[in-house]
Amino acid sequence: MPTNVPSGDGSLRFDLMIDGALRGVVRQAIGHVITHGLPGTHHFYLTFRTGQDGVEIPNALRAAHPDEMTIVLQNQFWDLRADEEAFEVTLSFNRIHHRLRVPFAALTSFADPSVQFGLQFQAETARPEDGADLPADGESDPAAAAGEQPAETPDAPAADDAAPA
Amino acid sequence: MPTNVPSGDGSLRFDLMIDGALRGVVRQAIGHVITHGLPGTHHFYLTFRTGQDGVEIPNALRAAHPDEMTIVLQNQFWDLRADEEAFEVTLSFNRIHHRLRVPFAALTSFADPSVQFGLQFQAETARPEDGADLPADGESDPAAAAGEQPAETPDAPAADDAAPA
Repeated sequence: MPTNVPSGDGSLRFDLMIDGALRGVVRQAIGHVITHGLPGTHHFYLTFRTGQDGVEIPNALRAAHPDEMTIVLQNQFWDLRADEEAFEVTLSFNRIHHRLRVPFAALTSFADPSVQFGLQFQAETARPEDGADLPADGESDPAAAAGEQPAETPDAPAADDAAPA
Repeated sequence: MPTNVPSGDGSLRFDLMIDGALRGVVRQAIGHVITHGLPGTHHFYLTFRTGQDGVEIPNALRAAHPDEMTIVLQNQFWDLRADEEAFEVTLSFNRIHHRLRVPFAALTSFADPSVQFGLQFQAETARPEDGADLPADGESDPAAAAGEQPAETPDAPAADDAAPA
């Protein structure tokens, strides 16, 4: 089940359900790569908030990318792993290998330019513990959900395998 | 994990991943109703292929709806249950209660008109056992994925709680 959907209150938040389901697609795609490798020309752009809880990256990278950072899984990545909450991968930055751990909840976008596939995620994946910021009757926001639709033209960031720093 | 995505071959089928993820949103919404009931004015339109494997409905309903059928979960439904593959519910048709079992894979659309939320699913959820009908390099079809996007104006079918037959 998606991990980003509140289950403790009585509201029906389709926007959060969609968000969690589409983050699950990223989890599944990464799981596919772990099992099968990257088929053909497929490659992944993953953009995440560097300051979000659970993100584990070198301090130098966080300093250089205080808001968001994009990594590419194409040719130069090692030891990709994933669990329900996050993926981990080793990348080379300035020829030094670093281990990164990125929760799926920290992702803001995912793209596979080889097949013009992309997903955009909510800037904040709220997990309202007390429901304080929910609409009165828990209605979903179609506009917010629309922001997470598969994009035919992913906004692929300018980054490469080796030197995002 | 979504149940409609092939895992045995090496292709990356984002279209099927999205399809499975969004069917999972329906599973989650039904699970929510099982736990919390239908909050406020929420109500669900569920359209499914009556002839698909695993669909269990009375013969009279199948005869009257040889292709698709829409049911509504609003006021008149009983004993809603769900597992990973399907949901079951008791509905009244011409004042006679019938038990229905509908696999999530048989759904063609889902809508909650109270919040202008809707999902459309692929007409066929292919589970290619031999990969014979896959594109050569397993590319996804952005157009197909786009057809499963959340719709802001669901095409709510003309049906009511009590008498779809």
